[in-house]
Amino acid sequence: MQIDDVLEIAGVFFSALSGGLAAVRKKFDVFGVLVLAWAAGLGGGILRDVLIGATPPVGIADPSLVVTAIVAGFVIFLLHPGLARMRTVVVVLDAGALAFFVLQGTTKGLDHGVGLLASVVVGVLTGIGGGVLRDMLTGEVPLVFADRQLYAIPAIVGAGLTAVLWQAGALTVATQAAVVVAVLGFRLVSVWRGWVVPAAAPGWTGRWGSGGSGRM
Amino acid sequence: MQIDDVLEIAGVFFSALSGGLAAVRKKFDVFGVLVLAWAAGLGGGILRDVLIGATPPVGIADPSLVVTAIVAGFVIFLLHPGLARMRTVVVVLDAGALAFFVLQGTTKGLDHGVGLLASVVVGVLTGIGGGVLRDMLTGEVPLVFADRQLYAIPAIVGAGLTAVLWQAGALTVATQAAVVVAVLGFRLVSVWRGWVVPAAAPGWTGRWGSGGSGRM
Amino acid sequence: MQIDDVLEIAGVFFSALSGGLAAVRKKFDVFGVLVLAWAAGLGGGILRDVLIGATPPVGIADPSLVVTAIVAGFVIFLLHPGLARMRTVVVVLDAGALAFFVLQGTTKGLDHGVGLLASVVVGVLTGIGGGVLRDMLTGEVPLVFADRQLYAIPAIVGAGLTAVLWQAGALTVATQAAVVVAVLGFRLVSVWRGWVVPAAAPGWTGRWGSGGSGRM
Repeated sequence: MQIDDVLEIAGVFFSALSGGLAAVRKKFDVFGVLVLAWAAGLGGGILRDVLIGATPPVGIADPSLVVTAIVAGFVIFLLHPGLARMRTVVVVLDAGALAFFVLQGTTKGLDHGVGLLASVVVGVLTGIGGGVLRDMLTGEVPLVFADRQLYAIPAIVGAGLTAVLWQAGALTVATQAAVVVAVLGFRLVSVWRGWVVPAAAPGWTGRWGSGGSGRM
Repeated sequence: MQIDDVLEIAGVFFSALSGGLAAVRKKFDVFGVLVLAWAAGLGGGILRDVLIGATPPVGIADPSLVVTAIVAGFVIFLLHPGLARMRTVVVVLDAGALAFFVLQGTTKGLDHGVGLLASVVVGVLTGIGGGVLRDMLTGEVPLVFADRQLYAIPAIVGAGLTAVLWQAGALTVATQAAVVVAVLGFRLVSVWRGWVVPAAAPGWTGRWGSGGSGRM
Repeated sequence: MQIDDVLEIAGVFFSALSGGLAAVRKKFDVFGVLVLAWAAGLGGGILRDVLIGATPPVGIADPSLVVTAIVAGFVIFLLHPGLARMRTVVVVLDAGALAFFVLQGTTKGLDHGVGLLASVVVGVLTGIGGGVLRDMLTGEVPLVFADRQLYAIPAIVGAGLTAVLWQAGALTVATQAAVVVAVLGFRLVSVWRGWVVPAAAPGWTGRWGSGGSGRM
């Protein structure tokens, strides 16, 4: 087992915890908790694989990844109150998972031949897609769109860096590690310093647009 | 027309009814009722086909299936109050549709060469995916995650049985019938006896995880 | 740059505005506004491309389209109050985008060899899918299912016309223009005359169907 595989399993595990926990908060049953752990841990990669045409997605076909997400779901189902005391640890681990997924997702897109732009998009989606799916399945507006934190921005920077390095033929173990450190560091510094991005200030709340726009 | 085709059309029809009814409860317009019937009747299979790379999905390309779902939508739109008296019948028919879809979805995955695990996953998704899509399109948290009933568990058992039999070269008409009877029986006995799975007991309601986890 | 490309970019731009505006109403942050613009402007085409197996979808791979959607998102983020005065213009532009997307989506399906029915379905989805995705990502029930307007009906008529013309070998620049005018005209007349389709009249609000149907 290589270092990449260990990091991937760790990333899935820590992302899956957030899905299981969201399900617990909604008082889902044990099946719902396991599905949410799977969706949060592997949903970003499933979305990536469907978009680049790499079917079946590893998120439904790779036993070690699927079992990892399920185990994370059981851990949350059985132990969740005890996890409340570990928040700082979780922020760091989650930022690590984000950094790793963005690097891996972008690289997979590039290796699959979908081009620079699509690879950056699927790299970002690999990092944030699981959380979006988790929120939608629990009836919440996706947190990443509204919480003003720098979560997607480090992901976009990391995916862009990866694509530029790959294009320049400079994507080595050392530069990959540098990308992970950059994303992780950017994310953690933004949390530590409380950086936020601007939110929209709606001055008008009418409704128009595609999907029924005429009644106004 | 073979027995398989008849069963598939019956399965789509009865699943589509549940989608149409959910749309009626939300006071959707006639187009919304038809789309929800289509999503509930064929959404699980569409998800399966996208995940295994069998495009275009039969749920958008097979005229007999699409027409079946649309007809079910019209039936609900025109007759829904009269259907309220048929609940016991519906539970049985719905369990039959679940059993058939799980067998068929798992077998399609195996025949498509995606491997045992992915086939079990898409088999379960074929059975429950339409209901999840129906609930998401009507703004509800998916019932199958939260209602504590044994709905997904019989599906998982059926998909696992199908995969084991296929792997052993023992998937005949007789064993396929046995799988359907097993899933159907398991589901109906669980309803009759009121069996439930445990739900999560949230002792802590904080929030963390991917998609914005730093504010804590 | 051909007239088709100009129309496509215009269609994406005006559809994306509706996504950005929905995000502004939900007080999303700048990243959320851009993602919603992208989803509303390009989500229908992404769904189409995934369903017909044309990966990677142009909605993540074509720089001019992705940049167009992002620019529309920034425009809304910076200028949205000023856009409130342009509603009539927007209804017309949105109807034009619907007409163009339906023609283009259906034709792409036909050219991709997925058959008449699947092409009509993906043509309609190209037209309405972005709005559905926009509503789901902002936690709303899709407007197109419930607002009783004639929005999907012109789309279905346009996709059907396109498929019939294609099948008859009569899909020329002139007939394509006729399809666009027909959809656009049908949509605008329905808005102008206030035409509506019937809504469901729920007389019974019980719950049954796949995804947990036994407890009744």
